[in-house]
Amino acid sequence: MKTFYVLNGPNLNRLGKREPDIYGNETLENVEQRISQLASENEATVIFRQSNHEGDLIDWIHEAEHASGIILNPGAFTHYSYAIRDAIASVPVSVVEVHISNVHKREPFRHTSVISPVTTGQIVGFGLKGYELALQSFL
Amino acid sequence: MKTFYVLNGPNLNRLGKREPDIYGNETLENVEQRISQLASENEATVIFRQSNHEGDLIDWIHEAEHASGIILNPGAFTHYSYAIRDAIASVPVSVVEVHISNVHKREPFRHTSVISPVTTGQIVGFGLKGYELALQSFL
Amino acid sequence: MKTFYVLNGPNLNRLGKREPDIYGNETLENVEQRISQLASENEATVIFRQSNHEGDLIDWIHEAEHASGIILNPGAFTHYSYAIRDAIASVPVSVVEVHISNVHKREPFRHTSVISPVTTGQIVGFGLKGYELALQSFL
Amino acid sequence: MKTFYVLNGPNLNRLGKREPDIYGNETLENVEQRISQLASENEATVIFRQSNHEGDLIDWIHEAEHASGIILNPGAFTHYSYAIRDAIASVPVSVVEVHISNVHKREPFRHTSVISPVTTGQIVGFGLKGYELALQSFL
Amino acid sequence: MKTFYVLNGPNLNRLGKREPDIYGNETLENVEQRISQLASENEATVIFRQSNHEGDLIDWIHEAEHASGIILNPGAFTHYSYAIRDAIASVPVSVVEVHISNVHKREPFRHTSVISPVTTGQIVGFGLKGYELALQSFL
Amino acid sequence: MKTFYVLNGPNLNRLGKREPDIYGNETLENVEQRISQLASENEATVIFRQSNHEGDLIDWIHEAEHASGIILNPGAFTHYSYAIRDAIASVPVSVVEVHISNVHKREPFRHTSVISPVTTGQIVGFGLKGYELALQSFL
Amino acid sequence: MKTFYVLNGPNLNRLGKREPDIYGNETLENVEQRISQLASENEATVIFRQSNHEGDLIDWIHEAEHASGIILNPGAFTHYSYAIRDAIASVPVSVVEVHISNVHKREPFRHTSVISPVTTGQIVGFGLKGYELALQSFL
Amino acid sequence: MKTFYVLNGPNLNRLGKREPDIYGNETLENVEQRISQLASENEATVIFRQSNHEGDLIDWIHEAEHASGIILNPGAFTHYSYAIRDAIASVPVSVVEVHISNVHKREPFRHTSVISPVTTGQIVGFGLKGYELALQSFL
Amino acid sequence: MKTFYVLNGPNLNRLGKREPDIYGNETLENVEQRISQLASENEATVIFRQSNHEGDLIDWIHEAEHASGIILNPGAFTHYSYAIRDAIASVPVSVVEVHISNVHKREPFRHTSVISPVTTGQIVGFGLKGYELALQSFL
Amino acid sequence: MKTFYVLNGPNLNRLGKREPDIYGNETLENVEQRISQLASENEATVIFRQSNHEGDLIDWIHEAEHASGIILNPGAFTHYSYAIRDAIASVPVSVVEVHISNVHKREPFRHTSVISPVTTGQIVGFGLKGYELALQSFL
Amino acid sequence: MKTFYVLNGPNLNRLGKREPDIYGNETLENVEQRISQLASENEATVIFRQSNHEGDLIDWIHEAEHASGIILNPGAFTHYSYAIRDAIASVPVSVVEVHISNVHKREPFRHTSVISPVTTGQIVGFGLKGYELALQSFL
Amino acid sequence: MKTFYVLNGPNLNRLGKREPDIYGNETLENVEQRISQLASENEATVIFRQSNHEGDLIDWIHEAEHASGIILNPGAFTHYSYAIRDAIASVPVSVVEVHISNVHKREPFRHTSVISPVTTGQIVGFGLKGYELALQSFL
Repeated sequence: MKTFYVLNGPNLNRLGKREPDIYGNETLENVEQRISQLASENEATVIFRQSNHEGDLIDWIHEAEHASGIILNPGAFTHYSYAIRDAIASVPVSVVEVHISNVHKREPFRHTSVISPVTTGQIVGFGLKGYELALQSFL
Repeated sequence: MKTFYVLNGPNLNRLGKREPDIYGNETLENVEQRISQLASENEATVIFRQSNHEGDLIDWIHEAEHASGIILNPGAFTHYSYAIRDAIASVPVSVVEVHISNVHKREPFRHTSVISPVTTGQIVGFGLKGYELALQSFL
Repeated sequence: MKTFYVLNGPNLNRLGKREPDIYGNETLENVEQRISQLASENEATVIFRQSNHEGDLIDWIHEAEHASGIILNPGAFTHYSYAIRDAIASVPVSVVEVHISNVHKREPFRHTSVISPVTTGQIVGFGLKGYELALQSFL
Repeated sequence: MKTFYVLNGPNLNRLGKREPDIYGNETLENVEQRISQLASENEATVIFRQSNHEGDLIDWIHEAEHASGIILNPGAFTHYSYAIRDAIASVPVSVVEVHISNVHKREPFRHTSVISPVTTGQIVGFGLKGYELALQSFL
Repeated sequence: MKTFYVLNGPNLNRLGKREPDIYGNETLENVEQRISQLASENEATVIFRQSNHEGDLIDWIHEAEHASGIILNPGAFTHYSYAIRDAIASVPVSVVEVHISNVHKREPFRHTSVISPVTTGQIVGFGLKGYELALQSFL
Repeated sequence: MKTFYVLNGPNLNRLGKREPDIYGNETLENVEQRISQLASENEATVIFRQSNHEGDLIDWIHEAEHASGIILNPGAFTHYSYAIRDAIASVPVSVVEVHISNVHKREPFRHTSVISPVTTGQIVGFGLKGYELALQSFL
Repeated sequence: MKTFYVLNGPNLNRLGKREPDIYGNETLENVEQRISQLASENEATVIFRQSNHEGDLIDWIHEAEHASGIILNPGAFTHYSYAIRDAIASVPVSVVEVHISNVHKREPFRHTSVISPVTTGQIVGFGLKGYELALQSFL
Repeated sequence: MKTFYVLNGPNLNRLGKREPDIYGNETLENVEQRISQLASENEATVIFRQSNHEGDLIDWIHEAEHASGIILNPGAFTHYSYAIRDAIASVPVSVVEVHISNVHKREPFRHTSVISPVTTGQIVGFGLKGYELALQSFL
Repeated sequence: MKTFYVLNGPNLNRLGKREPDIYGNETLENVEQRISQLASENEATVIFRQSNHEGDLIDWIHEAEHASGIILNPGAFTHYSYAIRDAIASVPVSVVEVHISNVHKREPFRHTSVISPVTTGQIVGFGLKGYELALQSFL
Repeated sequence: MKTFYVLNGPNLNRLGKREPDIYGNETLENVEQRISQLASENEATVIFRQSNHEGDLIDWIHEAEHASGIILNPGAFTHYSYAIRDAIASVPVSVVEVHISNVHKREPFRHTSVISPVTTGQIVGFGLKGYELALQSFL
Repeated sequence: MKTFYVLNGPNLNRLGKREPDIYGNETLENVEQRISQLASENEATVIFRQSNHEGDLIDWIHEAEHASGIILNPGAFTHYSYAIRDAIASVPVSVVEVHISNVHKREPFRHTSVISPVTTGQIVGFGLKGYELALQSFL
Repeated sequence: MKTFYVLNGPNLNRLGKREPDIYGNETLENVEQRISQLASENEATVIFRQSNHEGDLIDWIHEAEHASGIILNPGAFTHYSYAIRDAIASVPVSVVEVHISNVHKREPFRHTSVISPVTTGQIVGFGLKGYELALQSFL
């Protein structure tokens, strides 16, 4: 049975409360339910986590070194965390980067991802559905 | 019945022959077959086109103004065709941008898309499977 | 009798439908009527064209080499078509550049015209009336 | 009866003497006569002024707050006077920016106008005729 | 008894009329009253001035060389007047820079102050209350 | 009774020991005492915290979502923590940014705050008194 | 017998008429004659073409995939056509880039070729003789 | 008898009081005396002026159009007054630019002079003696 | 007896597993053994730590304020952690920065260290031997 | 009889030993033989030199002031030696710049030639054959 | 008796022959004669040298360490020779930088001097007379 | 027996006299003695040289092609000598780059080394001891 990690970065615990015109009204729990169901339909398991601490994300990426894939929404760390970038490069797992909003419509600093060059691919702008597309890309 | 346009920009007619380590061995005809089948399974139709002429892509985007969605791989036009950008902004259709390779692993000029700010979302780096994920995002 | 070319670039065929808060509700046909009438009142003729193909605009600029003047709205080609710039420099005709909207109020990429250095002058921000001001500048 | 302000910035009092290959041989008095005549033919009045002091131009823009329009040639202030920009934004009058020479053919610093984003439009490169085109745009 | 100068730069005489969604509805006279009252409660005097002329602000900063402090809202001169910067450096008085709006939420040119490096401190974004906080910082 | 959070970022626990020519000789405990006394004089409470961990500051900003205001000295996180920026944007509380030293007199990297665009205002350069001015701005 | 393609980009059909102080008085027909003669002397054939349409050049590069070499003067496309660059990279033929004038003596935008990194070599500044040197490099 | 203008920009009236480690202890009156004496020894006259108003300097440069030379220390206007630059270009008089301190040892903004390209020469870093060297260059 | 801290930043716990062509096959435990032995041969003690959390490194630098020296490999924090930079500046201990690989041969973002200006020196590119050279520099 | 100088800059004496995958296996002596033979076939003489000293190249360019042409491979001086650029501008001889490798495929610093604007033309990327093409351009 | 070094950089030996519209018709020998005469009138000696070798200039600056002053025209080394800059900083002698032409009217690369920050002053644009003004500044 | 080259660039012959607060009071002879002694203790020989001529350093690097290592302090050539960079790349010897001062604490131009990408490693900021650490890295 395949195991996938779904790792969420800073402020994603505020989903549903936070700027709903950008991020929508659903919460991260909703995402977890939907993504877990999709996984179980495909005989896979999902380990779903969120942290506001960069170091936690790095620890978890290391922990996932034998997983079948990582779905990573690094939140604002996307734009400056070279440490997360190096963490991804240090494990042999394929990583898919997900962004809920179309970051290219927003402030210039959101247009640069320091993480993209070490991921497999990016899924950007599809709302919470992006997590499902990411999981489908692995299945 | 829904109709989707799948529009491909310059040099994508060379798929299969062109730099196979980057773009793989499948041809654009393979993509058309797979995407058409996925569409028909979902009671939708796909209009599939390719051109090396920027003006053709603009004409086709205008033509698609009443379609249910456009899947657009603008090829190298991604990086400088503000005319295609304006074409997208001039129609009320949702556009999903697809790139076969992970452009963020390649030359710096490929890191900028002048088109992303007017699309709904981007799917990047998943090979030819990216077209299918794009269609799934609409379904 | 003097002949003037009025050449329109990409997406201007969408005028009236396209982002009406920026470009207004009138169509390119309206412009053609008004500009032709103004010309005929001044014993001049207008050749009025539009294309989404950069190469067409270049061909037409060459064709206009013996005209009394060119009024050119290059649309988005304004910002990157050095080929159109060279076309203008290759003919002995005076060219007036027209932009419907005040491009300096919009996205940064619209602030640069690669064509202005080889034109006679620019008329920017006056809506469709800009075409008439351009023709008056020649009369 | 409509009133228009025509405001001229630094060194425009040197017109006719100053770099005639760029600015021509006519003086600012010639401009005033022609523009006043055009105004009176259209039942309008023109208040015509020039100063080398940035503060005077700001004071006059404030004074013109109930006018029917301002025609402004800010001279070299075009390129750095954010104070004039804010003055324009602080009044409810429409402002047309005029430049005698085609600034885009000249030194790079002349290619940037800090004022354009708060004006209605720009008329650039038509010599002294540009003032008349500007007035016609209001009539 | 201490004396403080409160110096206001270009377009601040338009306060109350100018872009009220950014600058509020109160006038500069209201600010003068409130700041003068706060001063007199603390046995201090305020000299309150406004000009649209850069040279006036420089003259007044020189005049204030023996004052107990200067509260300076340089308006748009903030972004380019190295002459005001040098005026501040040429007097032994402490200067507090005040901006009514949060300039960091606005156009990029407003993010740079050429004056900050020679002031004591900056108070930004507190509306007209910023003048009072500045005076309190001196008391 | 109103509650205010006063949150301090990295190295502020070294206050009093750290570069006293820049930051002075007082400790963070002194700040807490003074700010708490000012609060209690105005029938308010202060929750005062410091951490060297970016994630802690984000957690605390979330925790403060129902507070009457946050006074935030992000230390060096000011210059790169887009995650803290997003945390501020995710809560409906007003945030005042405080810097002890006049950062504009120091190294260039200190001149940019990635946080300012989402705060209410900034108080910069007033030493430890800046915290009191910030609290007064709320009262 | 070897076949070489000589492909010419926009405005090169104006050769002889266009800015003769830069490009000389000979026409493209003269070039074709000379280059064909040189080819036939070396038992080779030349296919000689010109277009103002970017898409035509791309189509022709694809068509030339089995040729012995391509001599390409991309005209102004040199400076922005990443699509032509990708076309070159998509065929296994060696491409020599020719510029008639010494582009490094001219406007800054002419100093950058987006195509050079995928060509074999460049011959720049030798007037029409550059085509012959290019053919000699293949022989 | 020859007449020379010596024009001084903002804050030079503070000479002697202002940052003496940079500008020395002598006043502008000392400069005037020494330069006048040197002039009279060479049968020339000096018109010596100072203003903090940019507009005054422009007016004076126009006034000097028939003088034998202008010695100009534009103070901080050196770095941004394109209006003074244009004033110099508008008169047929030779202008020598003088700076008291070696501006290249100081803040980066002082390294750029927008005025140098239209002057005859620059004399930088020789203290008040620079004015005398400038006058000697004319004699 | 002297005490030295050897502090290691993010992903260095992956040494030996992580990109062995760049970082070699030895683990961090190997480094600790060798450096501890070298220390004990010189009558010194080494406190050896690693964390993926930026805040931990800051806490440890503060803790080391009375040590004889710090050897710091900040990993990817090198390139953006101004907070670690400030931590170093806040303690009176000498810090030597070590990088295992020659960062100047790698991606551009690795060429900038925000920490170097506050360290004593840097030892770069010597593999794990760099730690020993760093310790020798202190002995 | 015509005389041509062939001047080679730093490290070209290492040809054949130096990075053979970039520069090939032939030595500079081979080049000299081939180029001398081609010259003698055309009744011309070649003076062939190499130095690692910038000053030698400048001296030799001066020495060649009456030659029929200079073929110059400036090696790495291409990218920064404004002194060699000025040497070329100081003599009335035509200079052809040769680079063995296609510098546009290599590190970014190799993409800029400070010398090209004062040469007649450039021949880049043709290996050692480039010297022969350069000589042919003169014959 | 005072001794002054007058050191001239690359291509100044071509004075009189080299681009006479920029540098005039006089030779370096003329300069030497005039400067030596001025020196002897003031009981001083001049050591006058020229080299096209950067290393010679450095050697001579070291040699001049006990001289009364150095007049240095570094030619094109002005723009990149940090080695000459360091040579100047390594001797306790005052250095005056001279440029014959007004470098600010010429190509952008000539606008930057890497040497100015370590010289006493600069004299620019006065032709060969600049050497005399430099010597006068020492006398 | 191993042979090492220790090569020193411009102005290092001034060591001991030159800016002693930056470079210390010891001379280059002291360095030579210490490094030779360390070498002989390890059965190695040191060839120790200094030149102010870039070409000498290139010649010596070529000469050292069969040595066991090169210790190179390029002085100011570090920041612009691409010719030295190419010299290093042209020999199969390992090169260690040494800087006496911590260049990252000094002027911005000293922060960039064009040589680092082709060296084995860098040792920066350890004073003259850096040479010994470099030799130890080889032993």
